[in-house]
Amino acid sequence: MHKPRSSMLLIVSPILFLSFLCALAFLLKPPKESPNPLQGRRAISLKSTLVEGVEKPKNAGTHQLEVPPPKQQSPPHPTPPPGSCLVSPNFPAQVSRFCPEKTDLKDYALPNASWCPDMLSLYQEFLEKTKADGWIKLPSFKSNRDHIQGLKLPSGLAVTSDKSEWRIFTRCIQVDGQGYEYVIFFHPSKKKSVCLFQPGPYLEGAPGFAHGGSLAAMMDETFSKTAYLAGEGLFTLNLSIRFKNLIPVGSLAVLNVDVEKIEDQKLYMSCVAQSKDQQTVYAKSSGIFLQLQLEEESSQ
Amino acid sequence: MHKPRSSMLLIVSPILFLSFLCALAFLLKPPKESPNPLQGRRAISLKSTLVEGVEKPKNAGTHQLEVPPPKQQSPPHPTPPPGSCLVSPNFPAQVSRFCPEKTDLKDYALPNASWCPDMLSLYQEFLEKTKADGWIKLPSFKSNRDHIQGLKLPSGLAVTSDKSEWRIFTRCIQVDGQGYEYVIFFHPSKKKSVCLFQPGPYLEGAPGFAHGGSLAAMMDETFSKTAYLAGEGLFTLNLSIRFKNLIPVGSLAVLNVDVEKIEDQKLYMSCVAQSKDQQTVYAKSSGIFLQLQLEEESSQ
Repeated sequence: MHKPRSSMLLIVSPILFLSFLCALAFLLKPPKESPNPLQGRRAISLKSTLVEGVEKPKNAGTHQLEVPPPKQQSPPHPTPPPGSCLVSPNFPAQVSRFCPEKTDLKDYALPNASWCPDMLSLYQEFLEKTKADGWIKLPSFKSNRDHIQGLKLPSGLAVTSDKSEWRIFTRCIQVDGQGYEYVIFFHPSKKKSVCLFQPGPYLEGAPGFAHGGSLAAMMDETFSKTAYLAGEGLFTLNLSIRFKNLIPVGSLAVLNVDVEKIEDQKLYMSCVAQSKDQQTVYAKSSGIFLQLQLEEESSQ
Repeated sequence: MHKPRSSMLLIVSPILFLSFLCALAFLLKPPKESPNPLQGRRAISLKSTLVEGVEKPKNAGTHQLEVPPPKQQSPPHPTPPPGSCLVSPNFPAQVSRFCPEKTDLKDYALPNASWCPDMLSLYQEFLEKTKADGWIKLPSFKSNRDHIQGLKLPSGLAVTSDKSEWRIFTRCIQVDGQGYEYVIFFHPSKKKSVCLFQPGPYLEGAPGFAHGGSLAAMMDETFSKTAYLAGEGLFTLNLSIRFKNLIPVGSLAVLNVDVEKIEDQKLYMSCVAQSKDQQTVYAKSSGIFLQLQLEEESSQ
């Protein structure tokens, strides 16, 4: 219940953007009366006049909102955030803010007793690379709500204070080893990420093997963090996966993500998920994310 | 702890198939010694000489196993399963076996207090259609292991008896409304499905909205059940998603799945996820599944 003092990013920008869209939506049409407090929320469009090649919906109604044009790159926060960063000050602002040195929030991307030897050894290997090779270990809090501290949200659409009710999907299962175990390392200058992923027995599809959907979600999440940190990519527009082999529950899958290009406000990324020894390819995928810049809290 | 008497299907065939492959894998190479009981499992290849257009891995090692050719359609079980079916006996065997009339297993695809009014009303609407229009409500047990009762598994590779440790990914969260709420209706002759999906707060991506990966997994799971029941499609080969709008947590998304064609042992399917009023398209996707026939327990 400690309030983190450091300002952090993540899906930070998406939040501001969503909030802005939601504010517009609320102005356009009040939410329907609903006995469920979660209901009445509006769908947010990922489309924009700025996004080329995105199909126009047949029934675009009042839900269809246009994405505002992105702002020009503004200098990062005028004053440094409360918590200084573990990463070089030369990194993009969103990278520095993503990795607060001081926080009371639990980082779920740390080893626990459920991690298999392959995962532990590769984690240590990449941890060494953070000291000299430019890699960064990304923290992973239980909700994206925890990553948006210090960011400006439109009044009336502030995120609810009851944090305990919400979880980022890939941290939805609390018991170590039962669900998602993963850690993401990111290399800012190379614009690439490596995700060490160990699916637990609650992520099962065919008995003994990870559900294809659990890998799809892990890929989407790794793409998402990479897209944001490499180029303020916020929303998944496309996700395409070719499955090759099933991942045994409890074993390690290594996801290698690369940003292939950034064009027309879109980030094009690729991913290969394979075993540690690279002898077994589990799946290959591509993802396209929409870029959007958002503002920070002016008071910070 | 009651042992279900009725024989059931589902990912039944995939299980047999996986088991067969695993048996081969075990013969080829013993699993490595591992302190984690879940480790040492082998990856199972989804590729086959029978599957066209699937890329050959660069480092295909001993893990790469070939899919055996499918058997010719054999008549269903020689004797009817213990539990008679709610569905017409004219339906394919895998459909009848999928829907046991009597079972002690909990069906998670039933309404609970967390369901929003839209989900409840559409559920009732489709339930009416099961009486005359040929629709079937699919049961949903906590694990695919519960769906394989009565199916033959190779000796030495039987599914572990500790069922409580395993969960199908889309039923990984136990508290009503927190995670996945969904029910799938299937129409055998039309080869189509409708999935009513309500994401809970543990499926969050951007604050207040479902994670793209949670929708991807829901699509994969709906494709999976549809593929099996419509044509014994067992494994996801491809999953491709175009995201259009974010789904508000707690609201209803309706997934309409169609089998477009069955060709070269592959099922080609499409899905549109949209709001109940069809005014907001959340995402469109396509999926390709590999067909394989498997055998039943001869003793049943």
